[in-house]
Amino acid sequence: MSRYVQEDVSSEEIERQRALYGPLAQSVRELADAVIRTEVDDAEIAAARAGIEAITERLRERQIAGSYGVRFNAAGEGRAWGNAVVGTRNPVAPPLKVHHDSSGRAWAEFHLGAAYEGPPGLVHGGVSALILDQMLGEAAGAGGKPGMTGTLTLRYRRGTPLGELRAEAHIDRVEGVKTYAVGHVADAEGVTVEAEGVFILPKWACRALEKQAREQQDEPPPTRFE
Amino acid sequence: MSRYVQEDVSSEEIERQRALYGPLAQSVRELADAVIRTEVDDAEIAAARAGIEAITERLRERQIAGSYGVRFNAAGEGRAWGNAVVGTRNPVAPPLKVHHDSSGRAWAEFHLGAAYEGPPGLVHGGVSALILDQMLGEAAGAGGKPGMTGTLTLRYRRGTPLGELRAEAHIDRVEGVKTYAVGHVADAEGVTVEAEGVFILPKWACRALEKQAREQQDEPPPTRFE
Repeated sequence: MSRYVQEDVSSEEIERQRALYGPLAQSVRELADAVIRTEVDDAEIAAARAGIEAITERLRERQIAGSYGVRFNAAGEGRAWGNAVVGTRNPVAPPLKVHHDSSGRAWAEFHLGAAYEGPPGLVHGGVSALILDQMLGEAAGAGGKPGMTGTLTLRYRRGTPLGELRAEAHIDRVEGVKTYAVGHVADAEGVTVEAEGVFILPKWACRALEKQAREQQDEPPPTRFE
Repeated sequence: MSRYVQEDVSSEEIERQRALYGPLAQSVRELADAVIRTEVDDAEIAAARAGIEAITERLRERQIAGSYGVRFNAAGEGRAWGNAVVGTRNPVAPPLKVHHDSSGRAWAEFHLGAAYEGPPGLVHGGVSALILDQMLGEAAGAGGKPGMTGTLTLRYRRGTPLGELRAEAHIDRVEGVKTYAVGHVADAEGVTVEAEGVFILPKWACRALEKQAREQQDEPPPTRFE
């Protein structure tokens, strides 16, 4: 199983990889949108499929054994590039570019297209849940209280239209190992979905954080467990 | 904006389209997995990206204007092929193949790979929420009470490992326009995430159902609003 991996990678190397893999994943997001919407003829569809399979085969010639996991370097820079919401390398992720401040706030502006549809023209209710789970967790992490989701409650105020959207979250309160976070998704007209969640740091993650802190004396421990 | 569209398409034509678009979308799911995991060199990555962009351009030569929506034929067969959880044509969807019975039960067995990761080696908590939103809605629809999500509550019992999983849902009770459904995600060891949700049929969907019923006298109205 994948783990939190510490790698000896410079910030420059991380930027180089981001510039390489980010556009590759973005090209697959565009392809996914086209696969949903295309009306070209059967021969073109067959040719597209053969072309895609050939590319996949070449990419698989050398690949990691499992999922991407989360990787940290000595500077504490975390890369959750396989993450289903924020993963730079993950074509399933929109991906969200999340902003934070240390008071425990997180926000992101993003676009959801045809691949995130539920009811016609609307964002799938579960996609809003997916995004809010991530955003509430990001807020908890930003406030120095990283954790995994314990409970999550969504209230759907109205349909969320596909298109330009914004999500926000912040820490509401902390009680022992539990961090309570709240947030919402909004379109230009206002809030469409509200969420509240409880985030808990599991024992194995506590140990990983402590180990990291011991090894890195002067470095801050990673704050996000996405 | 996309709508519920009724098309004059035979069951045979739907099967032909499924056999054409299903494998195309599946090829993009494999590609997405490879993009997350590949370790080939930079020149190969650049070549892959160029190849993907060329395929996308060809697919976009003729495409529908917006998202896929949900399409019904005269036999009441619904196609939510763009749906983010069950969409045959949507590479973001795993996709789930959901089984139903008319008592208001729904179940599915499925595999989640690297593209659905949150914490290392584990399914993103929000992906479980996404799947359970769909499953609870499917149960409500199967029991003749289709609706859109009003509220959804998730309880995370433990991490859900990437791999082979099962989800189940059923109608717990109906109160007027509200349908209460419950369900869970499980791995081979048992339940990992529990959910309960309230599904409500919005007015516009009520009108669409009534219109469909008037037009199709002898045909059952569509029962799923995914």
